[in-house]
Amino acid sequence: MSPARSSVEQQAVEARRAAAELRIAPDELRRAALLAIAASIRARSSRILEANARDLDALAGRSAAFRDRLTLTAPRVAALARAVEEIAGLPDPVGRVLDVRTRPNGMEVRRVRVPIGVIAMVYESRPNVTVDAAGLCLRAGNAVLLRGGAESVHSDQALLEAIHEGLRTAGLPPAAATLLARRDYDAIRELVGLRGLVDLVIPRGGEALIALVSEHARVPVLKHERGVTHVFVDRAADPEMAIRIVVNAKTNRPSTCNALETALVDAPIAPRLLPPLVAALRAAGVEVRGCPVTRRLAADVAPATDDDWSAEYLDLILSVRVVDGLDEAIAHIRAYSTALADAIVTEDAARAERFVREVDSAAVLVNASTRLVDGGEFGLGAEVGISTSRLHARGPMGPDDLTTTKWIVWGSGQLRA
Amino acid sequence: MSPARSSVEQQAVEARRAAAELRIAPDELRRAALLAIAASIRARSSRILEANARDLDALAGRSAAFRDRLTLTAPRVAALARAVEEIAGLPDPVGRVLDVRTRPNGMEVRRVRVPIGVIAMVYESRPNVTVDAAGLCLRAGNAVLLRGGAESVHSDQALLEAIHEGLRTAGLPPAAATLLARRDYDAIRELVGLRGLVDLVIPRGGEALIALVSEHARVPVLKHERGVTHVFVDRAADPEMAIRIVVNAKTNRPSTCNALETALVDAPIAPRLLPPLVAALRAAGVEVRGCPVTRRLAADVAPATDDDWSAEYLDLILSVRVVDGLDEAIAHIRAYSTALADAIVTEDAARAERFVREVDSAAVLVNASTRLVDGGEFGLGAEVGISTSRLHARGPMGPDDLTTTKWIVWGSGQLRA
Repeated sequence: MSPARSSVEQQAVEARRAAAELRIAPDELRRAALLAIAASIRARSSRILEANARDLDALAGRSAAFRDRLTLTAPRVAALARAVEEIAGLPDPVGRVLDVRTRPNGMEVRRVRVPIGVIAMVYESRPNVTVDAAGLCLRAGNAVLLRGGAESVHSDQALLEAIHEGLRTAGLPPAAATLLARRDYDAIRELVGLRGLVDLVIPRGGEALIALVSEHARVPVLKHERGVTHVFVDRAADPEMAIRIVVNAKTNRPSTCNALETALVDAPIAPRLLPPLVAALRAAGVEVRGCPVTRRLAADVAPATDDDWSAEYLDLILSVRVVDGLDEAIAHIRAYSTALADAIVTEDAARAERFVREVDSAAVLVNASTRLVDGGEFGLGAEVGISTSRLHARGPMGPDDLTTTKWIVWGSGQLRA
Repeated sequence: MSPARSSVEQQAVEARRAAAELRIAPDELRRAALLAIAASIRARSSRILEANARDLDALAGRSAAFRDRLTLTAPRVAALARAVEEIAGLPDPVGRVLDVRTRPNGMEVRRVRVPIGVIAMVYESRPNVTVDAAGLCLRAGNAVLLRGGAESVHSDQALLEAIHEGLRTAGLPPAAATLLARRDYDAIRELVGLRGLVDLVIPRGGEALIALVSEHARVPVLKHERGVTHVFVDRAADPEMAIRIVVNAKTNRPSTCNALETALVDAPIAPRLLPPLVAALRAAGVEVRGCPVTRRLAADVAPATDDDWSAEYLDLILSVRVVDGLDEAIAHIRAYSTALADAIVTEDAARAERFVREVDSAAVLVNASTRLVDGGEFGLGAEVGISTSRLHARGPMGPDDLTTTKWIVWGSGQLRA
């Protein structure tokens, strides 16, 4: 007799069974389920808000930003329902033919998109991720195991009831979206070790969470880490454009992974650029920490220490360093970037091309704000997040990235010679 | 002070440095290096054969197949050089644009192929893998860390000297292809744990080797496991085609992962099919092990036990089972297939389509031999192996699968609204 299954393993077994059904469910059924989920979220709005109030009542000792991410309001619940409707409207990636070729022996070889299977999402107390992740996984024909943060347990549970109601309405198994019953760290360790039951784990959150998943994972992982991103203002930059891009990249939404953390300024343009740049940043409420040269050229700049170059402030703080040309800028980026998004501002095409070739980040931008590195801005329809892994999916991940491929051979008796 | 680096880590650090050079090396340089490697293998043929003779002299207690895979001859060395020349002639995947779109705000977003970085290949005593893996990794701009089997140490070393000579001739760093100095299992454990230094590990070999890598890996893994593959002969099959496909899939090269291990025969066709099928298999030297129904319908069939359904014989043995229709065939495949390659033989298009949709294997074939699941046969140019992983690359892997992607944004001052 095999030993009794743990609750985590049991939930994964049920998700796997649901994935087998979902894998062959036609698009119409998955779309109908998503629309029913959206309707159910709307219908259950007050119950969802009550559950959210219980979570917020129990919350203590967390930042305003944390509380804000956990908070639902009637308009936010309506926005969740709308997001699921938008996901329902996206083209179905499943079955899409990526490649078709007829070989000399007459057999036709196709490569088509198919669901991955069971995807585990490990994230923090953000009820919107519960809904988005479930919606996107279902869109691509996957079952999803959700492990949200301990602080959002009632909100997640109320949202999951709406998701289950929608799945049942469409005749799909509720186990296609499962909330992990246990929220402790041991449950995460067990979940990410379930080879053969879980096909992929996507951690989204702080460094500690991602480190925990990476350390214990025995299944493939696509990490969504925060970013230390750079804008290099080249000597050939348009100074006004450079100031607009740096201010936008820093202040548009400082708590996101694609927000700017360090500006590098080419020495020849520094005397001209830094005084108005620092003034514009300060006017936007940004604390500037600079290298000695920056501090000599602009007023009211705090000294940057070595730690500043690798800091993810996620706040209205920017480190600024004057570098001597493209080589020094690229060397700094190689040393400190988390390779999520790095940009150059320049009017010199040859220098832009060198930057694009030599900076090995998931997204490299010329004359554009790093905040534009985003699934919606890139036109992917919806975004699972921004992958900082190199394999399978890199940068903004869309529904396509939640599929794998399958080779299909149609023959007429072909043999291997 | 940081602790002293181990030799494995030190080699990985050097490979990483080489990868940074290789990543920006133009196609001409990488092609020149491959051609110089081929020339160097030819010029050093006698030295390579001497080294191989030392390995063979030291070999004891291994199968004839093992010795054969380790053995080099003058024609085999020439074939290795030719294989590298063919790899040099393949189109360069690096820089290929997969997608380009202009967004409503005017920015152009491209997705292009870029090298993965440092790839670790962990395999057994097969000198041809040393050369193929190095050639394919270099073709796609990656540095490669090679860990061959302990029995091929002199052969691998002699081949690596030729590879290094070729790299030096083209002005590329020899550390772009590195043979792990330590061949013990602890060295593998250390190698696959080097997050930040190794980007991908590809194990090719027996179950124990792949289990070792999977258990200890802290970097992404693409497994190349052996296959338990199936051919289902449907009631609507052309019996003669079915016999040709089963015999070819079993006997064309039984030691390979895409060779057939189990034939499933639909009950209505079994009385007609099994006697000539078993006769043809026996004529080809195949031992047949069957279920009770098979044994009743055909002569000279040994009884199959439960173990036979999950066996990878890699030998002239075939298990045969009579099943009652498509549902039972698909259920058997779900239970026992390693999802590498499974085929149906049928003249009924609707039944073929259902099989293709419901069997979730890396390759699913209709009326064709499983032995055709191969990079060369599929037209990929060259093959790294057949991935049994679901993420990043699934099925026959070509040079494209040794790349990742990068997003490049060309703007004119775009900001996030």
